[in-house]
Amino acid sequence: MEDLSRLTLREIAAGVREKRWDAARVMRAALHRIETLEPKVRAWEHLDAASAMDRAEASKNTAGPLAGVPIGVKDIIDVAGMPTKFGSRVYADAKPAKETAQSIQALENAGAIVVGKTVTTEFAYYSPGKTRNPWNETHTPGGSSQGSAASVACGMVPGAVGTQTNGSVIRPAAFCGVVGFKPSLGLVSNHATMDPWPTLDHTGVFARNVADAALLAATIAQNGAIAAEMKPFERPPRLAAVRTPVWDQAEAVQRDMLAQNATALKQAGADVRDFDLPAEYNDAHRVQRTIMAFEAARHFGALQKQHRDRMSAQINALLDEGAAIAERDYKDALGKTGNFRKEFSRVMGDYDAFITPPAPGEAPATLEQTGNPTFCTIWTLLGVPAITIPVGLGPAGLPLGLQIVGRARDDERTLAIAAWCERHLPFSRDKLNA
Amino acid sequence: MEDLSRLTLREIAAGVREKRWDAARVMRAALHRIETLEPKVRAWEHLDAASAMDRAEASKNTAGPLAGVPIGVKDIIDVAGMPTKFGSRVYADAKPAKETAQSIQALENAGAIVVGKTVTTEFAYYSPGKTRNPWNETHTPGGSSQGSAASVACGMVPGAVGTQTNGSVIRPAAFCGVVGFKPSLGLVSNHATMDPWPTLDHTGVFARNVADAALLAATIAQNGAIAAEMKPFERPPRLAAVRTPVWDQAEAVQRDMLAQNATALKQAGADVRDFDLPAEYNDAHRVQRTIMAFEAARHFGALQKQHRDRMSAQINALLDEGAAIAERDYKDALGKTGNFRKEFSRVMGDYDAFITPPAPGEAPATLEQTGNPTFCTIWTLLGVPAITIPVGLGPAGLPLGLQIVGRARDDERTLAIAAWCERHLPFSRDKLNA
Repeated sequence: MEDLSRLTLREIAAGVREKRWDAARVMRAALHRIETLEPKVRAWEHLDAASAMDRAEASKNTAGPLAGVPIGVKDIIDVAGMPTKFGSRVYADAKPAKETAQSIQALENAGAIVVGKTVTTEFAYYSPGKTRNPWNETHTPGGSSQGSAASVACGMVPGAVGTQTNGSVIRPAAFCGVVGFKPSLGLVSNHATMDPWPTLDHTGVFARNVADAALLAATIAQNGAIAAEMKPFERPPRLAAVRTPVWDQAEAVQRDMLAQNATALKQAGADVRDFDLPAEYNDAHRVQRTIMAFEAARHFGALQKQHRDRMSAQINALLDEGAAIAERDYKDALGKTGNFRKEFSRVMGDYDAFITPPAPGEAPATLEQTGNPTFCTIWTLLGVPAITIPVGLGPAGLPLGLQIVGRARDDERTLAIAAWCERHLPFSRDKLNA
Repeated sequence: MEDLSRLTLREIAAGVREKRWDAARVMRAALHRIETLEPKVRAWEHLDAASAMDRAEASKNTAGPLAGVPIGVKDIIDVAGMPTKFGSRVYADAKPAKETAQSIQALENAGAIVVGKTVTTEFAYYSPGKTRNPWNETHTPGGSSQGSAASVACGMVPGAVGTQTNGSVIRPAAFCGVVGFKPSLGLVSNHATMDPWPTLDHTGVFARNVADAALLAATIAQNGAIAAEMKPFERPPRLAAVRTPVWDQAEAVQRDMLAQNATALKQAGADVRDFDLPAEYNDAHRVQRTIMAFEAARHFGALQKQHRDRMSAQINALLDEGAAIAERDYKDALGKTGNFRKEFSRVMGDYDAFITPPAPGEAPATLEQTGNPTFCTIWTLLGVPAITIPVGLGPAGLPLGLQIVGRARDDERTLAIAAWCERHLPFSRDKLNA
């Protein structure tokens, strides 16, 4: 019997369609792997194995693009019949949700089966949940979509859904050595998904390779905005290696990795040049922070009044910070964001995509925090498609990634370029699945 | 002094930018017109004139694309500081909302000023609010976005925001003789907007002409999906006149109007042909109904248990209908919807757009119901851009419209074609503003 935990989700669904196995067998394999690894990795907030098996056995969709594919769902996204706890003590006794989020409903409609809810940091902000990095359990898996990243990384599920407001898809994906993809802002509905940060909240996906991430994104994107079948990028891409204003926060190993990647991609035929963002981008991190703090205070202010003592020091500090921001400063930040977004395609000039670090380096050796999102901040603020692919291991033996960024709504091309990079920067992940 | 109530929103904003008038003077004019006409039209659910004047006087955005433009917001969309009552007795005592919906925030950021909340039918379904058709107060303005359509129609505001789940933007716009535009599904965020129907809920806009509707839509669309400046359509368009499976519900006057429009557009150079949808579209209305009833029951079921006696017979019947639908029938309907959406671009073949009636005819002479949405149902289910422009008056002296439908995410082209049609089907609305 094939080890289903090593397969991509396209391979799993193809096997179901071709009757080489069925959804029940796939789910059994996923649950077996979860049973084995969950004590170490702790990726799941809610998991009812009997219910997951029942749903897999009852599944009649044997023809869909995701037929029989088990998926994990970040626990700030509603799935009917499962509680949504937002990683918060305030919602520890939440009742099962009545509705399934539009994004997840689309996956189910394509044949996928939700295994359970994956661990999130508290309210998708900084205070860590219980998840550990599958590559080394003393290291953070990153956040906030930590259970989604970790569960895919160790083969519990071939795909998962998360969200990003700053660096919550790209960072944990990079730290856990999987592909993470944040489509353009708005391409995926945030229906029945916690969205305190309407200017910044993106729903995104985790998978083992770019083609799988593209299929998940194509399924959840509204209106066919991303095609399910990827077209190969037609020529070697024109890439800019972008260091961003926070370059001094990158570790030497990450700087070297970007340089190595640039060299390898050049050797493969790409035109790769160094590129500096215009000076106004020096303000982008402050702008993002203003919006995130202000919108958080607006959304969670009433909850904080009632439950401050059941909320973490991190989130209380953010809400206090936001409550002190004047509305005109918030509106000014929104105005600047609008200008950044309007100008970005021009800023990219002739480049097909930017390549840039997804994180400062390997996942830090701590479970007390989730690492630094700063290399994701600008691309989240811009609302542009961003994807990270695993490209190697660092000195601690943990993964390093490469982030590829495209123009707004140019998601298909960005995915195609990421697939091109993936092909020319092969990195074997078989080590983990031993 | 110019009569600001006759100006388009682009003209109003240009006047503010060029200092020919300021936001306060514009707001004063709007409030004056509201004071005059509101006793007859009843478009507003919440209006605090002093607060609107204060906000206009405090406005410092004199350079934005919507500088000083007063707008109305359908009362299922949150605006901070104003209650959201959903047209429901259950929420008659609602407190002011804390957050402003992302769509409305984008308008404010561009300089627009929210005058107040416009009347909606109960939960955006069929039970009418108090609004009357400005062309004849014994006729319905349509629904559900009835206050938004009526307030624009009689010059209270030059633009307004509404939503459509079946025919709730296009129908009232047609009945009230204004332009109504429903962008592609998902192009506008439904953040802080009632969205019980995630498969169907579109946020849309009302304005006096296509260029104004395009500017509003460009402002609220995420990610620059619609450009603020319209490009003229480059050549006479290839149009299909589509009668749809519900053609027998169209009144003679509406059938004749479509034929007249087709002739006039042909004379202007367009290639216009009759076109029948494939047979499977005969099932589209049933599919939409299944989804609407099922999702309504799922979303409002708990509320109904508690408040059945404060909910209308219409909404109770819908919820009872939905509660009786088996989940497999709902999923089957979603699957069919997915196929419709996937195939529609191919169905459109070489045509640039479809033209089709927005409604069965003039607004019915009743205030007991809001008229028939059936000519909008298919295009809502498909999630494609749809726009109605006023093209003439019927025998009762009320407006008739022409609906233009495009491919998913082809909003800019659809708007450009609508502007082309508007130019070649001129219809003066000065009668009303007398």
